[in-house]
Amino acid sequence: MLEIISDPQSMRSEVLKARAAGHRIGFVPTMGALHAGHASLVARAVRECEAVAVSIFVNPTQFGPAEDFERYPRQLQADCQLLNEWKVRWVFAPEAAAIYPPGAATRVVVGGPAGCFEGEVRPGHFEGVATVVCRLFLAVPADAAYFGAKDWQQTLVVKRMVCDLGLAVDVVVCPTVREPDGLAMSSRNALLTPDERHRAVALFESLCCAERMWLAGFAVAGIEQAMREALQARSVSVDYAVVVAADSLEPYDASLAVSQSGAKALPVPVALVAGRVGSTRLIDNRVLPART
Amino acid sequence: MLEIISDPQSMRSEVLKARAAGHRIGFVPTMGALHAGHASLVARAVRECEAVAVSIFVNPTQFGPAEDFERYPRQLQADCQLLNEWKVRWVFAPEAAAIYPPGAATRVVVGGPAGCFEGEVRPGHFEGVATVVCRLFLAVPADAAYFGAKDWQQTLVVKRMVCDLGLAVDVVVCPTVREPDGLAMSSRNALLTPDERHRAVALFESLCCAERMWLAGFAVAGIEQAMREALQARSVSVDYAVVVAADSLEPYDASLAVSQSGAKALPVPVALVAGRVGSTRLIDNRVLPART
Repeated sequence: MLEIISDPQSMRSEVLKARAAGHRIGFVPTMGALHAGHASLVARAVRECEAVAVSIFVNPTQFGPAEDFERYPRQLQADCQLLNEWKVRWVFAPEAAAIYPPGAATRVVVGGPAGCFEGEVRPGHFEGVATVVCRLFLAVPADAAYFGAKDWQQTLVVKRMVCDLGLAVDVVVCPTVREPDGLAMSSRNALLTPDERHRAVALFESLCCAERMWLAGFAVAGIEQAMREALQARSVSVDYAVVVAADSLEPYDASLAVSQSGAKALPVPVALVAGRVGSTRLIDNRVLPART
Repeated sequence: MLEIISDPQSMRSEVLKARAAGHRIGFVPTMGALHAGHASLVARAVRECEAVAVSIFVNPTQFGPAEDFERYPRQLQADCQLLNEWKVRWVFAPEAAAIYPPGAATRVVVGGPAGCFEGEVRPGHFEGVATVVCRLFLAVPADAAYFGAKDWQQTLVVKRMVCDLGLAVDVVVCPTVREPDGLAMSSRNALLTPDERHRAVALFESLCCAERMWLAGFAVAGIEQAMREALQARSVSVDYAVVVAADSLEPYDASLAVSQSGAKALPVPVALVAGRVGSTRLIDNRVLPART
């Protein structure tokens, strides 16, 4: 039976009690408005752990002043019903004041993978993400935390922070779940008009195009140009459409990649896209397969 | 018998094992070069806890480029001998690469109390402190951590971070230990020439002067002027000499202090001094008593 907890200290002691009893604890941090993407994260956590906590917190500090914090979908009751069906043990749904106490003045700032792409388009976004995820990891001291690959850059930022601060949690990245036409599941999809929903498939199309061209041996610049055109063909306003190294987000340049042994090592490439469909901003990505 | 541990994960699992056995764990973070000030922190930790960990790590990121990182005293063997005598259970002495792994890019940034005084004179200092203390608290997940009041502003920054991130550790601030002539114990005292050592007592003298004038009813501006003069009389180059609110470091202004109930509430004042004696920078402070 699902238990709803709002106090971070109660949440923490529940998790520690369960761990002391020898249980492996999984954690899925979310902003609510749950969909099939979250369902797959929870399913994996439930499969791998004895007890699972899901947080629902629409974190104000990761939204820019002109972004969709107010408009972001909220449906706590419906979410809790789903989480109960999904066999989750705890919902951690704190008030903002429990996460950001009066006079709060501490920020967790990640450089490296947070500097480009989303970090450039959304200044302060990853600082908000890293700070809240650090705070959540301390309130929910789980063995493993589950994140969707859709937010690829976010997974790199979280992994970087976990490594640097020595947070004792395994970061598990799970495959993106898609609608039948390929659109990546996102709570923001609910904000699309029918026409925008139709055009939003352009992100997926641009990634398919990137993969085809990649396998056919095209160079990165040509692939990026084609991704851009696929987005513009559906009137998606492009923030970026790139092929970069999947682990560092640095420019993909096979000739510069030299492994420690001195032998050439090709980085794994990832295609990243972001753009606005009407007033809704969407992102997606695909890790590209090895070229033979 | 003292155990020396350099690996953060081993350190963490030792502490968790002891806590699981029901022991209260104390932690004293230091940069080594131990003196009677550290001894008093350790003594209190040993009194209050079943097992005590002391870290020795000269943290490069809290030193500015022109500061005394290279010159900072280092004496690991002598320190370990002392810690063994003081009944410490573990010394955590990590290599820099264990605290800052390759590609490390995460910083913990505290605003509020970190903005002024040491934060202004030593840009980046408190960011280095907060980052390393957060990292150390995760490697040594103790029940309580002990800090000296000599670094008053640092204790405020650490408490702010602990509160904001929800780190589950009690921050215990212990009284400054002094030499017979009043000089606050500091590893940096070892860097003073005999003449400088003699003049260094000016910091203590300025604090005594502040307390006398405070009790006699002088206004803050006059007290600060007298503190400055006491320092300059011994050729101490003054960075700051102020009387401010002890909990916020905001300007001490009784007329602005209104408690939540609407009644006037006087903040507790603290006198803070910092200056250079020759090429060695020293700080000190005193919380001022209530005026009747």
